[in-house]
Amino acid sequence: MARQVTIGIDMGGTKVLGVGVDDEGVVLAEVRVPTPGRSAVASGDTDGPEAVIEALASVVEQLHEVIDVEVASVGVGAPGLVDNTGVLRYAPNLPRGTGLDIAQGLSARLGGLRTVVDNDATCATVAEWAFGAAAGVSDAVMVTLGTGIGGGIIAGGQVVRGASGFGGEIGHMVVDPTGPLCPCGKRGCWERFASGSGLARLAREAAQSGRLEEVVHLAGGDAELVRGEHVTRAAQGGDAGALAVLGELGWWLALGLSNLALALDPAVMVYGGGLVDTVSLVLDRVRSAFDELLEGHAFRPEVRIVPAVLGERSGAIGAALVARAGDRYRVDVA
Amino acid sequence: MARQVTIGIDMGGTKVLGVGVDDEGVVLAEVRVPTPGRSAVASGDTDGPEAVIEALASVVEQLHEVIDVEVASVGVGAPGLVDNTGVLRYAPNLPRGTGLDIAQGLSARLGGLRTVVDNDATCATVAEWAFGAAAGVSDAVMVTLGTGIGGGIIAGGQVVRGASGFGGEIGHMVVDPTGPLCPCGKRGCWERFASGSGLARLAREAAQSGRLEEVVHLAGGDAELVRGEHVTRAAQGGDAGALAVLGELGWWLALGLSNLALALDPAVMVYGGGLVDTVSLVLDRVRSAFDELLEGHAFRPEVRIVPAVLGERSGAIGAALVARAGDRYRVDVA
Repeated sequence: MARQVTIGIDMGGTKVLGVGVDDEGVVLAEVRVPTPGRSAVASGDTDGPEAVIEALASVVEQLHEVIDVEVASVGVGAPGLVDNTGVLRYAPNLPRGTGLDIAQGLSARLGGLRTVVDNDATCATVAEWAFGAAAGVSDAVMVTLGTGIGGGIIAGGQVVRGASGFGGEIGHMVVDPTGPLCPCGKRGCWERFASGSGLARLAREAAQSGRLEEVVHLAGGDAELVRGEHVTRAAQGGDAGALAVLGELGWWLALGLSNLALALDPAVMVYGGGLVDTVSLVLDRVRSAFDELLEGHAFRPEVRIVPAVLGERSGAIGAALVARAGDRYRVDVA
Repeated sequence: MARQVTIGIDMGGTKVLGVGVDDEGVVLAEVRVPTPGRSAVASGDTDGPEAVIEALASVVEQLHEVIDVEVASVGVGAPGLVDNTGVLRYAPNLPRGTGLDIAQGLSARLGGLRTVVDNDATCATVAEWAFGAAAGVSDAVMVTLGTGIGGGIIAGGQVVRGASGFGGEIGHMVVDPTGPLCPCGKRGCWERFASGSGLARLAREAAQSGRLEEVVHLAGGDAELVRGEHVTRAAQGGDAGALAVLGELGWWLALGLSNLALALDPAVMVYGGGLVDTVSLVLDRVRSAFDELLEGHAFRPEVRIVPAVLGERSGAIGAALVARAGDRYRVDVA
């Protein structure tokens, strides 16, 4: 029997990352192209949606060229609210993404090739559940910590999609109604605290109050220019001020995780995304805060809190798994 | 074929309510006895756990006497963390309940009769899902608003039990980390705001600041004595101050509901418990706040927010359903 390959694509705000995955889940090839749209917006170009479909199609074609075996189906992980039919209903972080019928558009562009679309963080969760940090459990939560916070939920051996396919949109859960304003219009969304942009905000506040000398030095001497990576670098060098800021980040992360754990009682909670190494620096702090915040903690088995292991390709691998499963509502894993 | 009856029991902090339910879900009989334990604590009596089992057994026996057909199995809804084997692992609101092996203890006391135990709010959710306000949907959340907040979650056509059976413990999700202290030791748990005790606190604050003349009058003139029912009664009479306090309650309820909706994307959210009529007085306020708080609201189908319809027997009926289903992890409903 001829080998078949499934293609998975993670459509990010800045880049589109595609992988070809074989029947055993082995990644055979990888391709990346810039996400179109930002420059199109700047230049006044109006063909944004078509450019997105074209970029996705070009990733498929490049991967097919490299791998040169039949492509069974294509899965796409997209940032935002993806409904059950593969339409991106709302995509605040993807220029012109809102309303885009990715499944239909890409399938048509690829001559009718079967195309399945899901939320990017849900795809990453499926991958970590199949081959990664959440393998072997029936109940898990994954949070992807990037500029914002994405999420995916496994409950009772099923991916939680929800009524419309929008499950796992946890970044905008409000954890402090009098907290900082969020671009979404609310105050105190979780991702104002426990994400990359949250870290930058916590760091600038600390820098402006004079608590981050070393970090400000790394940022060129201007507290206004402090970014998350400066804090991480200083913390890696043992700087107490930087570690204190990461401790704050860790506390807020633990708060949201414990809220989700109360609702869902997962066996494991996985954190991934660009901030994974930063959070690992203060995992002890996350762990102890989580235990303090989890009601009845002393009477529960320990909820494992672990870093993702599949790295930046998890979303693309998961998109391939979702496409391969043939049924968006149940992904059977070994 | 002889008719069979399943008995369902809701074990509350003050009373034990039992029902006998036939194969069509019709309630054939009802019995209630006081929950033992409180007086035992006061009198120094140490046989609390046995007294709880004995009270449950007496409810079964009384129901059996009334109905006089074979009892197939018994289901018990208990307040607190009930694990997958029917042990009440943690029960802050039930004297001496913590650690009680209800399933084993009651089954032994009843001559080996099949006994299944689950969380009380999860039982109520199963009942509302089977015959009530959440009938016919695959994704639903129920909140029971009493002294505290209990919860139950249906996702993808399954009851969310979690890894240990502790899913749906949503009352202690923190929604305001600088908020009022909770008996659990944390600050700003959801049930400090959107429950009966939360309403009493909001009302006393408003009364002490002079905003609740009519309510204080109903409470006999002392702001310290203001309780939730005074606010509800004044609001039913159209008192603006009372309605404003209920509006606050409604806003906090909406906050927690929208957080859960972001994670779970339910088609319907059901509110039940002792506060159901009070909340219905300000349902418009809950609705509008929920929509404002739900990220991407304009791009989502409306999440229905509806009162429970099965009343105070929902927990007992649901316990019978859970026992009858034979499988704690999947309750198939028509």
